[in-house]
Amino acid sequence: MQNLIDLVDKRLDEYMPVIYPEDIFRAMKYTVTLPGKRLRPIMCLETTRILGGNINDALPTACAIEMLHAQSLIHDDLPCMDNDDFRRGKPSNHKVFGEANAVLAGDALLTFAPQLIIEKSDLPAETTLKLVHEFTKWAGAYALIAGQVVDIESEGGKFVKSPEETLNFIHMNKTAALFRLAVRSGAIIANADDKTLETFDGFAQKFGLAFQIYDDIMDEISTFEELGKTVGKDKNSGKLTYVSLYGLDEAKCKFSSLMQDCYGIIDKYPSEIFRGILDKLQKRILGE
Amino acid sequence: MQNLIDLVDKRLDEYMPVIYPEDIFRAMKYTVTLPGKRLRPIMCLETTRILGGNINDALPTACAIEMLHAQSLIHDDLPCMDNDDFRRGKPSNHKVFGEANAVLAGDALLTFAPQLIIEKSDLPAETTLKLVHEFTKWAGAYALIAGQVVDIESEGGKFVKSPEETLNFIHMNKTAALFRLAVRSGAIIANADDKTLETFDGFAQKFGLAFQIYDDIMDEISTFEELGKTVGKDKNSGKLTYVSLYGLDEAKCKFSSLMQDCYGIIDKYPSEIFRGILDKLQKRILGE
Repeated sequence: MQNLIDLVDKRLDEYMPVIYPEDIFRAMKYTVTLPGKRLRPIMCLETTRILGGNINDALPTACAIEMLHAQSLIHDDLPCMDNDDFRRGKPSNHKVFGEANAVLAGDALLTFAPQLIIEKSDLPAETTLKLVHEFTKWAGAYALIAGQVVDIESEGGKFVKSPEETLNFIHMNKTAALFRLAVRSGAIIANADDKTLETFDGFAQKFGLAFQIYDDIMDEISTFEELGKTVGKDKNSGKLTYVSLYGLDEAKCKFSSLMQDCYGIIDKYPSEIFRGILDKLQKRILGE
Repeated sequence: MQNLIDLVDKRLDEYMPVIYPEDIFRAMKYTVTLPGKRLRPIMCLETTRILGGNINDALPTACAIEMLHAQSLIHDDLPCMDNDDFRRGKPSNHKVFGEANAVLAGDALLTFAPQLIIEKSDLPAETTLKLVHEFTKWAGAYALIAGQVVDIESEGGKFVKSPEETLNFIHMNKTAALFRLAVRSGAIIANADDKTLETFDGFAQKFGLAFQIYDDIMDEISTFEELGKTVGKDKNSGKLTYVSLYGLDEAKCKFSSLMQDCYGIIDKYPSEIFRGILDKLQKRILGE
């Protein structure tokens, strides 16, 4: 696992030169290269590998997905959104570079990432186009941003659908979307057939929901030192979460059930990486 | 000209359905569909046409470029940027939908636009990929956003290069970039050779600078009713503009010289549209 993290970190650094005007490139690079678990790029690379592809072909796309993730964090932390001063234990982007640069750094990452896929992937045009298409679909108003919008609205107590449906919509779009993008991209790079792609997509949906419940539970039970970001914020802001809606015990049950589904799907594939990721999350929540 | 504006407006409306969560799709559509001159999409369509292509092939890309333009306006108007309450005579995006939705609407447009190119263009994968590549190059930190960052920095009196070089950098990147994207895309759709593409790119560079000088002069001499946005703001904020750097007369001379270059380049092509655009700008500034 650490090998893959190091590989992704090395590529992220290489792919992001700091040129004139340096402020914007520094701001982009700052959040992208903050130490992290690199779950999304690793899941992309590992999907390519276990489906018989070459992870070198997947590195530009894997890094692009991490950049998209960083983009969503930069904008989510803005004063007009979640107004968070810390991210991964460090001051958030706008605290270091100012609000204007943070908005622009996020904007820049949204096109820098697909540009990277196009310029650095040595794949047939049809494949590259598919990858960029996936990127645009999951990054935008039909997924990631839809999730963020409904999340913000639900904080203001505005519900168009029921709380349960709303919560599910937020997490499927805000959290699961990037995991789906990661494994779908990995499968496309490995030239997987549609059925296999859908299997991995199904895995990513379950994993994404489990991961969000994990996050909700951690927000309830962790310290700032453990999370590297403000904790208890969800609770204090009356935010709609699995814990606020179902209670801590029921949230743990849902998490456990989704994790079992994930193990079941990935069992057919020889992947220590995927099993390692599942084990780690499960241990933190269920102590098993 | 009006026919092309109507065609673009019709397509922009068709391409942007308002679905759940409606707030984000409404916010995106609001700024994109504010009445405007549609210069960038029209220049894309007209380049395709005069180079022997079919404008139907260019409509998705032309509309995508207008969406990118709207995106840049939405984020430029934010309180943390230029803090403008009006755009095209109407309240700016964040005044209508709130700051969070305005940030997210801009974000969403940045991937909605290339998604549109991919989904609606009926072109070979290589061509579509080239179009998306151009889009990502000109929209991001290497062009449009670089221009915006240096623009903001220069307002704070921060110059890395000389004022003349800085002003040129801002306008080549902030303004000319989208015109270059427009005509380059139009040429790619028409399968133009590299030399022709570069000729049109050269035209767009000159036109972009002329257009920015036009904008700087109009900010100095117009009323709110004429421009549909706050006027005299550049002057009051001590912003670096052609007028502030060179004075009104010298700015008009530079504008006139660039316009002559533009007429010279486009003279070889039978385009009433391009000539009409040049004539209109020239008449406003020089009264000829």
